[in-house]
Amino acid sequence: MNKKVAVVGIGHTKFGRFPDATLRELAAVAGFSALEDAGITSPDIDFLSVGVASGSLSGQLSPAASVADALGITGAPLYRSEAACATGSAAIRSAYTALASGASDIALVVGAELMTRVPSAKATEYLAEMGDYGWEYPHGITFPGYFGLIASAHMKEFGTTEEDLALVAVKNHENAYHNEYAQFRKRITVDDVLKSKMVAYPLKLLDCSPLSDGASALVLTTEEHAKDLSDTPVWIEANALASLNNLAAERKDLATIPSVRLAAKKAYAQSGLGPKDIDFAEVHDCFTIAEIVVYEELGFSGRGKGAELVRSDQTSIGGEIPVNPSGGLKAKGHPLGATGVSMAVEVVKQFRGEVERRRYVGGEVALTQNMGLTGQYSFVTIYRRG
Amino acid sequence: MNKKVAVVGIGHTKFGRFPDATLRELAAVAGFSALEDAGITSPDIDFLSVGVASGSLSGQLSPAASVADALGITGAPLYRSEAACATGSAAIRSAYTALASGASDIALVVGAELMTRVPSAKATEYLAEMGDYGWEYPHGITFPGYFGLIASAHMKEFGTTEEDLALVAVKNHENAYHNEYAQFRKRITVDDVLKSKMVAYPLKLLDCSPLSDGASALVLTTEEHAKDLSDTPVWIEANALASLNNLAAERKDLATIPSVRLAAKKAYAQSGLGPKDIDFAEVHDCFTIAEIVVYEELGFSGRGKGAELVRSDQTSIGGEIPVNPSGGLKAKGHPLGATGVSMAVEVVKQFRGEVERRRYVGGEVALTQNMGLTGQYSFVTIYRRG
Repeated sequence: MNKKVAVVGIGHTKFGRFPDATLRELAAVAGFSALEDAGITSPDIDFLSVGVASGSLSGQLSPAASVADALGITGAPLYRSEAACATGSAAIRSAYTALASGASDIALVVGAELMTRVPSAKATEYLAEMGDYGWEYPHGITFPGYFGLIASAHMKEFGTTEEDLALVAVKNHENAYHNEYAQFRKRITVDDVLKSKMVAYPLKLLDCSPLSDGASALVLTTEEHAKDLSDTPVWIEANALASLNNLAAERKDLATIPSVRLAAKKAYAQSGLGPKDIDFAEVHDCFTIAEIVVYEELGFSGRGKGAELVRSDQTSIGGEIPVNPSGGLKAKGHPLGATGVSMAVEVVKQFRGEVERRRYVGGEVALTQNMGLTGQYSFVTIYRRG
Repeated sequence: MNKKVAVVGIGHTKFGRFPDATLRELAAVAGFSALEDAGITSPDIDFLSVGVASGSLSGQLSPAASVADALGITGAPLYRSEAACATGSAAIRSAYTALASGASDIALVVGAELMTRVPSAKATEYLAEMGDYGWEYPHGITFPGYFGLIASAHMKEFGTTEEDLALVAVKNHENAYHNEYAQFRKRITVDDVLKSKMVAYPLKLLDCSPLSDGASALVLTTEEHAKDLSDTPVWIEANALASLNNLAAERKDLATIPSVRLAAKKAYAQSGLGPKDIDFAEVHDCFTIAEIVVYEELGFSGRGKGAELVRSDQTSIGGEIPVNPSGGLKAKGHPLGATGVSMAVEVVKQFRGEVERRRYVGGEVALTQNMGLTGQYSFVTIYRRG
């Protein structure tokens, strides 16, 4: 890339169910927090990158202008990205290329989603309509269904068990217990997961991330301005994106998500780093099986060996490579547009030491991985403490 | 910008009502045409930028992955932009910054929309839901309503008449009559416009762009590859984006669209060119009044003098500065995601001389202007014949 880019401000709302909030309000809370954190105000922003996955969920079909309005940003370039559950990462990438290209100098990235305004069944329907409308959605498949297929394939191929999946949920709930922004601050046991209601075999309710309202935000800038805006800039060492064929029915091996591997390969090449250099990671555990497959695709474990990491506590705080110290999508919550941005916020907080002691992992290099749909969008970003 | 970017391939479907088509099919027709035009194939693409404004209209809520699938593009970075009626220009900008930053080398931009699958009243509703959902949409305002307010203000302030508005429609229908891709290839008279059904005073049916299905596509690349892929590259000399406050109720002067002026100012500064250097333009005539206001904001006429240009035929083919030789949104059609891309396709066709003799305007420098909502997104791009 032509210019280096750093994160110099962060903002985050609590994730949860906020029946009285609007999308623009959530976005404004996170956005203003990030501006304040960077010590700047709305007129300093020359690119506003908004990530909202679904207009249908909030009722605002073209959402970015109302977010700009709530933030008092007028005149500056305005952009909305959509990449399903990776929408927040798409919004980061949009700002990243704008800054790296020289088109803008200081960008505000705001990811937000309001998912609980409509009844849960309607929200699930809107999410299902993000699947292929031609050949798969009409047959009734939903996203728990897709990831149920992935889990079944992984269990058959590699011997992963329902208990292994449950261990991911238990770990992430433990981490979220200490995160003041998390939707679920409740410890759970393997037994709780196994006894929770079946959603899509073998995934049970406690294997699934929830419907969430929430927003998160970043101020990004180029190397020329980073030191002026922050004593603790966090550098984007790599930002990679890869795609995957759309129809699950046409995939050769459902136990893998090749776009994650491809994006990771690109990110490692861009940064000159490898999986061993990563101190901790925030990854896309929309369903517990996803986290296990992602371990493998990122090279944290060998193929088919992902479950071993969680069995041996290597991805818990205190382990070899802590994953999802924030609590992840599973327990922190998953407001689609906010999720990718929230991962970056967690990285910055860890680097700065701005987290509860019991979930502090620290380190110098962190990786975030966020995907849309079942991997049709895969983002991998590597951050370094400045 | 760090790298120069050129258009080296174009594709376009006919615009119109295609009850048997799907979004992905339209996108594939335009996309494959652009690849063929550039002499490349899907695996050569390392960035696919998809512009679709509304998932609700087509039934595919996260549309980019199905477009990638239809084009056989897998693995490459995939992106979806949404900027309401300027979605196509947002998709171009996304590719432009990716190329200029060095993140990608050869990008395919595909803009598409399927607007006639749902009944017209439902489509109008989905479009209205792009307006502010908090304070304006609930009061019943639709986009014809917003532009009716703009027209009323312009008439009161500057003496623009309903006949002036009608002249824009007559000119653009005349141009579309010779465009094989246009939705309406039917000449109309001022009288036809004035006698057509009132939609939102003073705008009548023939002052309004239609609901359209269609797609258009571009191959973009950097200076390193442009000459290899095309003997007739078209260079992007400037690409500017500006925003405007969201609530029409809070605007001081409805007879102006300040974001268009701001984007034009930026584009002129980037290119070192001015309005006098522009040989022809494709602009956003979603309603006839928009074209007149845009003349003023782009500096083609003085403030309040826009109507004089159309009265004196200066924006007709053969005039001083032909505007919308393609027939514009008004008569070529306005499939939201395709529109901004289609403007660029028209520029390339004119530069190459690939249009019917009676609508050939030629030239060396052209400008496109595309806006979303009522100017919350304003894109101005300047192209130069290579």
